Amino acid sequence: MRVYLAGPDVFLPDAADRAAALKAICARHGLLGVSPLDPLPEAPQAWQALPLSQRIARANEAHIRTADAVIANLTPFRGPSADAGTVFEVGFARALERPVFGWTNDAADFFTRSRRFVGTVTADATGAWRDRDGMLLESFGLQDNLMIDAAILASGGALVVVDVPSAARWTDLDAFERCVVAAAGLAG
Amino acid sequence: MRVYLAGPDVFLPDAADRAAALKAICARHGLLGVSPLDPLPEAPQAWQALPLSQRIARANEAHIRTADAVIANLTPFRGPSADAGTVFEVGFARALERPVFGWTNDAADFFTRSRRFVGTVTADATGAWRDRDGMLLESFGLQDNLMIDAAILASGGALVVVDVPSAARWTDLDAFERCVVAAAGLAG
Repeated sequence: MRVYLAGPDVFLPDAADRAAALKAICARHGLLGVSPLDPLPEAPQAWQALPLSQRIARANEAHIRTADAVIANLTPFRGPSADAGTVFEVGFARALERPVFGWTNDAADFFTRSRRFVGTVTADATGAWRDRDGMLLESFGLQDNLMIDAAILASGGALVVVDVPSAARWTDLDAFERCVVAAAGLAG
Repeated sequence: MRVYLAGPDVFLPDAADRAAALKAICARHGLLGVSPLDPLPEAPQAWQALPLSQRIARANEAHIRTADAVIANLTPFRGPSADAGTVFEVGFARALERPVFGWTNDAADFFTRSRRFVGTVTADATGAWRDRDGMLLESFGLQDNLMIDAAILASGGALVVVDVPSAARWTDLDAFERCVVAAAGLAG
């Protein structure tokens, strides 16, 4: 079972080591982890004319198309939500009807994180919370924007939430491993 | 031609009026705009047992599946990137090979916005920029995470970037209308 490993892990200083660590955990549970850093076998010749950013994007899309499932690191990244590239890939995988597993090392819910981010909130006439621009804050008790949580649930995947000290936010792989175990369960 | 109108516009205080305004612009150019706020005709009976957040998510996914294209408001939302729900939907549409049009009222590129967000950056040995956690900042000169920009380009859509005063960030619809015109061009 091929599992695409989405996440801002590719931005870590030791990104190659991190990819190897994630793959080793996958292998321990009988899965083949595919990293966004992996070169695409048989990338079309025509791609060589494309800028690097487009080659990376097309390779990642191709990796997801050939994966059986996606495990996404949804730990909040530069704002209340997960990394944008990761969220894109969760949506991409969901449209392809792949099981999507999400993990996050931040146990605060999306409303709590959003409120912390925007600072001041006020309740409107319906009791909904709004920021200074009048923009609504989602308050469904979910981990991120409802499209993400709901997609994971509907896809047959799982969302694993753990609370780790902020210093270990980008190193603790317990939640990741729990996703791997869950995905391996699907492989039956 | 049915066009799904993705964006954090649904969080505006006047979200219903905003949806009507976007649809009116679509109609003027011969397109049928579909809002995330639109009820889904013939939603499965089984959905009634689901929590509201999941009903909304499934309806939006169904709207995108029945749309011919997506126009996404990528104006940065609570962080350097676009709204997470919108980004999810861009990925979803891309996997379905729909043309995706993006618009943003913030002309600063992703690197500039990310650097402003993280505050302090330092160059590593390769000259790449990293934040306090050592996490890389993308510096491709794109408008958002490379998955988003590249998907729009590869999809046959277009990315329209305008620089509007911050007070008009959630009201100016010039970039949106330019996307509508471009999408209408595809409809031939």
